[in-house]
Amino acid sequence: MTQTLRAAMLSYHTSPLATPGSSDAGGMNVYVSSLAQALGRCGFAVDIYTRRTAPWDRITELASGVRVVPITAGPMRSVDKADLVAHLGDFVDGVAASFEQAEAPDIIHANYWMSALAGQRLKWRTGLPLAVTFHTLGLVKERDTNTAESTQRILAEGDIVGCADLLLASTQQEADDLAECYGADPARVRVMPPGVDSGIFHPGSRAQARELLGLGPAPIALFVGRIQPLKGLQLAVEAFARADVRGANLVVVGGPSGPDGPAELEASIAIARRYGVLDRIDWRPPQAHEALGAFYRAADICLVPSFSESFGLVALEAGASGTPVIASDVGGLSRILTDGVSGRLIDTRDPDIWAQGIHDLLSDDATRTTMGDAAWLMSSHLTWGATAARLAHAYRTVIANDAVDCREPQKVSASADSGGM
Amino acid sequence: MTQTLRAAMLSYHTSPLATPGSSDAGGMNVYVSSLAQALGRCGFAVDIYTRRTAPWDRITELASGVRVVPITAGPMRSVDKADLVAHLGDFVDGVAASFEQAEAPDIIHANYWMSALAGQRLKWRTGLPLAVTFHTLGLVKERDTNTAESTQRILAEGDIVGCADLLLASTQQEADDLAECYGADPARVRVMPPGVDSGIFHPGSRAQARELLGLGPAPIALFVGRIQPLKGLQLAVEAFARADVRGANLVVVGGPSGPDGPAELEASIAIARRYGVLDRIDWRPPQAHEALGAFYRAADICLVPSFSESFGLVALEAGASGTPVIASDVGGLSRILTDGVSGRLIDTRDPDIWAQGIHDLLSDDATRTTMGDAAWLMSSHLTWGATAARLAHAYRTVIANDAVDCREPQKVSASADSGGM
Repeated sequence: MTQTLRAAMLSYHTSPLATPGSSDAGGMNVYVSSLAQALGRCGFAVDIYTRRTAPWDRITELASGVRVVPITAGPMRSVDKADLVAHLGDFVDGVAASFEQAEAPDIIHANYWMSALAGQRLKWRTGLPLAVTFHTLGLVKERDTNTAESTQRILAEGDIVGCADLLLASTQQEADDLAECYGADPARVRVMPPGVDSGIFHPGSRAQARELLGLGPAPIALFVGRIQPLKGLQLAVEAFARADVRGANLVVVGGPSGPDGPAELEASIAIARRYGVLDRIDWRPPQAHEALGAFYRAADICLVPSFSESFGLVALEAGASGTPVIASDVGGLSRILTDGVSGRLIDTRDPDIWAQGIHDLLSDDATRTTMGDAAWLMSSHLTWGATAARLAHAYRTVIANDAVDCREPQKVSASADSGGM
Repeated sequence: MTQTLRAAMLSYHTSPLATPGSSDAGGMNVYVSSLAQALGRCGFAVDIYTRRTAPWDRITELASGVRVVPITAGPMRSVDKADLVAHLGDFVDGVAASFEQAEAPDIIHANYWMSALAGQRLKWRTGLPLAVTFHTLGLVKERDTNTAESTQRILAEGDIVGCADLLLASTQQEADDLAECYGADPARVRVMPPGVDSGIFHPGSRAQARELLGLGPAPIALFVGRIQPLKGLQLAVEAFARADVRGANLVVVGGPSGPDGPAELEASIAIARRYGVLDRIDWRPPQAHEALGAFYRAADICLVPSFSESFGLVALEAGASGTPVIASDVGGLSRILTDGVSGRLIDTRDPDIWAQGIHDLLSDDATRTTMGDAAWLMSSHLTWGATAARLAHAYRTVIANDAVDCREPQKVSASADSGGM
């Protein structure tokens, strides 16, 4: 097949142009942007549809043949994620109108459950095949964090799993979760790990990276991510304080995210103050993805104390930069890392156990070096090019086959949805 | 006097590092940043104290000897301006501690009434002389916009006028307002117009500016400013629509600001939709100050329909770029512009009168050129260097004389203040 295929990616609630680590932007933004660009290099034309959040948002070219297309749906400003479902109907209309104005795509690829709901409606209207990456699943998040997700989300995910032609899981664990929690047909599930850009994330001189970032020679533990309860910054701060490694600093890269973000930041600051380590925390704003590599190279260890992660891109990026990771033993993190080899997996949130792990690894140069090398080796085969090639093959298979039957989706509207949230 | 003098500028509610046209940042941010840098070139050492709005805010050098110093006071995030008074006490403590750690300044210069309240307390504690630029005055805003300002603000402004050693007014009108509304001692008031940076704002090729900004050859009316009711974007949109100049576009540069910002933007969009001109409005995000020059050069006319302006920096910047301005006949705008010579002053908010003004000026190339030349001529003597030289002289006079007696300021605390807001 030499003809250019066209993919419409849906990224409704957050734009691939947003800076990861701020607002609702995180690993998913990196995934959508990197994957679309790698698909572009495989000869695909990719339009990424996202909600317009400011009147000046306009069509932007990420790379040759790869565009971000803003669609007006709801107010032209940031809206709390929980209030976004109400505007999905307008988003669907806008994307459908765009399909009609230009050449229609060959496949729709939706990211996160809200975009997948939009994708389901677009499939119903147009008959186009639908690929879905959930990134997180409501039932899995409930299991891992012991909190309740909306019934609407859980039901929507079930519906979508029933009608999607291709379900992309980042790990075998996520594939198993799709089958076990949502009854997904295994024939439609493909495990496709995200990649890591070795142009940005690669081993290098620690001293040079520190000089670039204005960091001194003392030991550094690094936290990268949105500041929200799910990411566990409070545990990172408390464990760092209790580890009590002489002169060590904790570098935190990321900004408050979502309605609970500011409170999470304030709680983390309060813990640091209580332990008297506030002046040993170096807070840095969310960084452009290209600027993150130096932070990983500068750090001695990276902490990923998330309650739940379907993949855990930060752990992969740190490893690709040759920096060992101490992470929660959950979700994708359990697959990315091998405990005792490329880092440490800790299956408790007891801050003393974490503190012991931090203390041991920061005090043992030889183990840190060995683990960093192993982490780099294990990440080196995960490239966005390989991921995109695998995805392109899956797209072509799905496009060539008959689409899975699609039930008429539930009506998405403000009144119907607000009750369910 | 050849010894380096030190000035402590207070800019509590908004940082000179913020992008004007976004959040609470506007002309005052340009004023503080430009004036401090020009004072630096006059040999002053200037520290600008501002509230820390993120944990990663740190001391930043704007120019040699000119620094921005963040002070922790209240949560480390954006806070609604109305809720900021509650944290003034912490700000005062933080600034005072900074004075004690390093060399104390020779003078305090506060901007806006909240910083001036902090300045009053610092003067009470340290005996240092206090200079104040109010930028806007509560009683004048009440008069111009027919809305109520907080009693606390009005009382504070009265107190501050009584104890400040130097009151800086941007125009004679503002000096008169200080005397008439607040009983200021005229001997302590200096009229000191802001400057305009001719490196950024100067006449130049309209075609080249348009190419740079991706704007076509059709007539362009420009609006620059924060999107909030005070700035009158709704009138600009309605007048533009009614002017009905064939092919003309309205370029809007700025973002929603304050609690009423999003509603003001939505109302403006609704008006554009009602008149069917939404696709003739080119929305652009807030721009770095350095990037604004090209917008003024690209525009045929600039609209400044504010309800109230103590100065009106946008009108000055447009004029310096050789672009005629149509402005409300209020406050500083009435002084910056000469009606019929360097632009148009309109003393009504009737959209038909405004539409007529826009139509006439956009249809008359010769008048536009003449007015643009006159606007440039009238602005050419207003440089930040001249402003800073005048200010440096006033500082030295105040420092050499005995300070004005200062009554003990009202206690500033969360409980005491929240009632007054």
